[in-house]
Amino acid sequence: MLQTIKPYKKEYDYSYTLGVFLTIELLENKPEQVQCVVLSSLAHKNTGVDKIENICAARNISCYINDKVLTRISPKENCYAAGIFNKYESALSKDKNHVVLVNPMDSGNLGTIMRTCLGFQVQDLAIIRPAVDIFDPKTVRASMGALFGMNFKYYDSFEAYNESFQAHYSYPFILKGRETVYNLEKTKKEPCALIFGNESSGLPESFEHVGTGIVIPHSRQIDSLNLSIAVGIALYELCKFNK
Amino acid sequence: MLQTIKPYKKEYDYSYTLGVFLTIELLENKPEQVQCVVLSSLAHKNTGVDKIENICAARNISCYINDKVLTRISPKENCYAAGIFNKYESALSKDKNHVVLVNPMDSGNLGTIMRTCLGFQVQDLAIIRPAVDIFDPKTVRASMGALFGMNFKYYDSFEAYNESFQAHYSYPFILKGRETVYNLEKTKKEPCALIFGNESSGLPESFEHVGTGIVIPHSRQIDSLNLSIAVGIALYELCKFNK
Repeated sequence: MLQTIKPYKKEYDYSYTLGVFLTIELLENKPEQVQCVVLSSLAHKNTGVDKIENICAARNISCYINDKVLTRISPKENCYAAGIFNKYESALSKDKNHVVLVNPMDSGNLGTIMRTCLGFQVQDLAIIRPAVDIFDPKTVRASMGALFGMNFKYYDSFEAYNESFQAHYSYPFILKGRETVYNLEKTKKEPCALIFGNESSGLPESFEHVGTGIVIPHSRQIDSLNLSIAVGIALYELCKFNK
Repeated sequence: MLQTIKPYKKEYDYSYTLGVFLTIELLENKPEQVQCVVLSSLAHKNTGVDKIENICAARNISCYINDKVLTRISPKENCYAAGIFNKYESALSKDKNHVVLVNPMDSGNLGTIMRTCLGFQVQDLAIIRPAVDIFDPKTVRASMGALFGMNFKYYDSFEAYNESFQAHYSYPFILKGRETVYNLEKTKKEPCALIFGNESSGLPESFEHVGTGIVIPHSRQIDSLNLSIAVGIALYELCKFNK
């Protein structure tokens, strides 16, 4: 089966982690999705490789040494390990808070956002198409493995998402928001959905009539905050006193 | 002089903006540093180009049409404009709050951090070497032009920075911080320096004895927040009620 592993394309039904750290995260969180692990012939130089071999042995996951495959799929040299896994989707929780990203386009942002979600105890992510591919190895890397700790699901429209989660109160983040994010923790209705627009255009105006619009006040010296920064501040406020 | 413009290297004494938006930001904020502007022969297709030509005319800045130079310095197709500018440094304010980045290594993070600084009214940035190059075109792009609205200066050590700004109270962001960021706005001593470590290793332990350590509480599901997210939350708290 190693011969069939090719540089990533969105339409394939598999993706991969590149690097020892990410491969361990995959094996620990989603072992049932792993097809196999590929190690470099120099892998023994890296301290985490024992751990990979132990998990593979315990879980009966095939573990090959094959430099050719690694060179083929990794843009960087010195990649000591890769984990090949099946793509999957997971149902979102009915009773927990969600983050909803409408048309996110940047793989780095999406990865950083997942890591921040886990940091602030939101495990459920809805993504409205068109959108960046969550399984792109660049997204997986930017998430530092947080991808494997999240529930996520793609929807064709916000309406399709909203129909499935009518009990979730909507907080769209828009410049014309009625409330500031300062009071989110005190006034929040839960479960809720924190909703964010695309990196360059934000949310469409139609969201002004959805739930309660929230604004993150900032100076006029910039047009908008970076998407991942906005999500970070919102999540930070949402879970601030849940300690 | 167009013949001498080459793909960016750190050691050159010039850098450049790629794209119409960034070039306008450069021309509006740092016209005195601009050597010249290069436009594509297709530049008239882009609506911002008029503005570039007007500023260049008013400021007596040379504006050339030259596709070869653009192809040489821009990794992307469809780059309609570039602004070639001299590298510069600017003194930091003696009486305003600073952000201090110790050994930042990611150009995307540095750019996002500058944009966030401007959004939360901190215009002074100290960078402790070794560190990523603030003039790398990737950093310039990630800053969305915020670079040109900031004061920034490199230092060889934190001590060298600290000697120049003894009146600034130090808030190093560390996991073992005595205070949480929640109270920063209420308890802050100003002017202050918000100090952040490297993307992978954070601040060295020696910072536990500097000023007041601050922690941003997060779940145990992640090791740390992304650097730009941590800086974003800190700046957001610092300037929260300064409206």
